[in-house]
Amino acid sequence: MKVARILQYGQETFAIVNENGKAITRDELVDQTDLVLPLDVEEFLFTDYIQQIQDHHLSRLSFIHEVNEFHLLPPIMKSFKIICLAFNYTDQGTWVRFGKNPPKEPVIYLKPRTSLIGGMDDIVCPNFVKELDYEGELALAIGKKCRRIDEDDALKYVVGYFVFNDVSARDVQFLDKQYSRAKGFDTFGPCGPWLTTTDEISNPCDLHITTKVNGEIRQNSSTKNLVLKISKIIYSLSKVMTLEPGDIISTGTPSGTALSMSSNLKYLKHNDIVEVEIEKLGKIRNRVLFVN
Amino acid sequence: MKVARILQYGQETFAIVNENGKAITRDELVDQTDLVLPLDVEEFLFTDYIQQIQDHHLSRLSFIHEVNEFHLLPPIMKSFKIICLAFNYTDQGTWVRFGKNPPKEPVIYLKPRTSLIGGMDDIVCPNFVKELDYEGELALAIGKKCRRIDEDDALKYVVGYFVFNDVSARDVQFLDKQYSRAKGFDTFGPCGPWLTTTDEISNPCDLHITTKVNGEIRQNSSTKNLVLKISKIIYSLSKVMTLEPGDIISTGTPSGTALSMSSNLKYLKHNDIVEVEIEKLGKIRNRVLFVN
Repeated sequence: MKVARILQYGQETFAIVNENGKAITRDELVDQTDLVLPLDVEEFLFTDYIQQIQDHHLSRLSFIHEVNEFHLLPPIMKSFKIICLAFNYTDQGTWVRFGKNPPKEPVIYLKPRTSLIGGMDDIVCPNFVKELDYEGELALAIGKKCRRIDEDDALKYVVGYFVFNDVSARDVQFLDKQYSRAKGFDTFGPCGPWLTTTDEISNPCDLHITTKVNGEIRQNSSTKNLVLKISKIIYSLSKVMTLEPGDIISTGTPSGTALSMSSNLKYLKHNDIVEVEIEKLGKIRNRVLFVN
Repeated sequence: MKVARILQYGQETFAIVNENGKAITRDELVDQTDLVLPLDVEEFLFTDYIQQIQDHHLSRLSFIHEVNEFHLLPPIMKSFKIICLAFNYTDQGTWVRFGKNPPKEPVIYLKPRTSLIGGMDDIVCPNFVKELDYEGELALAIGKKCRRIDEDDALKYVVGYFVFNDVSARDVQFLDKQYSRAKGFDTFGPCGPWLTTTDEISNPCDLHITTKVNGEIRQNSSTKNLVLKISKIIYSLSKVMTLEPGDIISTGTPSGTALSMSSNLKYLKHNDIVEVEIEKLGKIRNRVLFVN
């Protein structure tokens, strides 16, 4: 099931989206199913409403909206952690350039939830940033609290997947060495377009992923190329920290960032359009604005 | 005012603590003031109840408990960001050892809220960590949402201060280079003993700070030695990211960590007692346990 967080009549709610891009909102779901659904998407996702709808109601629902009638919000917003992985694609090879071996445990940094924006919102960057870059990534949301779990059970704690752009100010990143300021700016976490629940994604480590800037393909890879696979990432992190419902893990970016190009001209400019698309999960499309 | 998050009758609530270590709980405050106080300490701190109590009730309250009757919890738990600064003491000089100048903008990494524990709780470290270290720090909590504020206004967005120990697995830190995994373990963020509101701290950049291990002084400095002062830290971060009520900023650690010693024997061992004390804010005291 695809669950979008949206604005309707100026208020936050959520909608289910079908394979044809048609949507039914939370209030319409209540009318058509007689289920007493929560108002918050997080509560909806972390309980068994989705299973109930799939089992008993889905075939009879009428999807009366085009999803693009709505302003899309980040699929999840109540995230106490947004964990991002570095050096996690075999084709990225940054670990090769730095003379290192691929990581055996996840190398992580955290982004603040204030960086999150929806799949169509603008990336708004202060003018003092000189080297703005994209990183198309597969992200997942944790649905159940977990700590020190078995690797074989890890995927059971995932509620769904979505597209993430780990926008990065490279000049700040290289000044600080630590990544959290460079990647923690407001609007530097475009994501969406919606969350796709795990039942629709039989193998999250076999999805085609592309990033385009103004239509030009910059990243073109597959989550097959993840160094640490998703179950290993969750297993390893759970040895260190408790993962909570709503926590987001973004699994790293493949080759093709502006940073990796020989020309400085590939960094993002005012009015550029960045699109990240992942097979089965959809596409996010964000304009870049530089402001004082 | 000193506001402690505590367990009473097995449930989370909060208490006001006076200068003699006597406490009055939230329910007793309600009885004695007829104010309708919220159940959550965050809601209590981020509204004007504290001002009302100080103006109209404080002199008549009867503090009937010893604060150490209670199990102390982290002063704030609903923190979407816990921002920690690196290289921010003139006497730490790590930036000198690395051949760098002191930072002009905050170098930050984020800790997850799942790392927070109370001022008397145990630091529980998996056995695979070989170099466990302490970092005594002054932390502050944001009380009002802010973005792109003036430096002169910065302190108005702070609700209070408390003691923080930025516990760090140095072997993991040097493997990853990024700090968030090394410092993000469950229990690696002891803090407290309570939050002291800003009206009691006329100058947060002139407080004596010490860290002891088994009674031996390891860190002995003053927040006078902060490279970036607190108003500058908040101002600079607010140019990058929106700060939200409950966000914690820990301002960096002075010289004297185990890492900075010539001997490897100074790292923390099973059953060590770590105490961090800051003038006017109190002391936290945490035992170290290594577990499988």
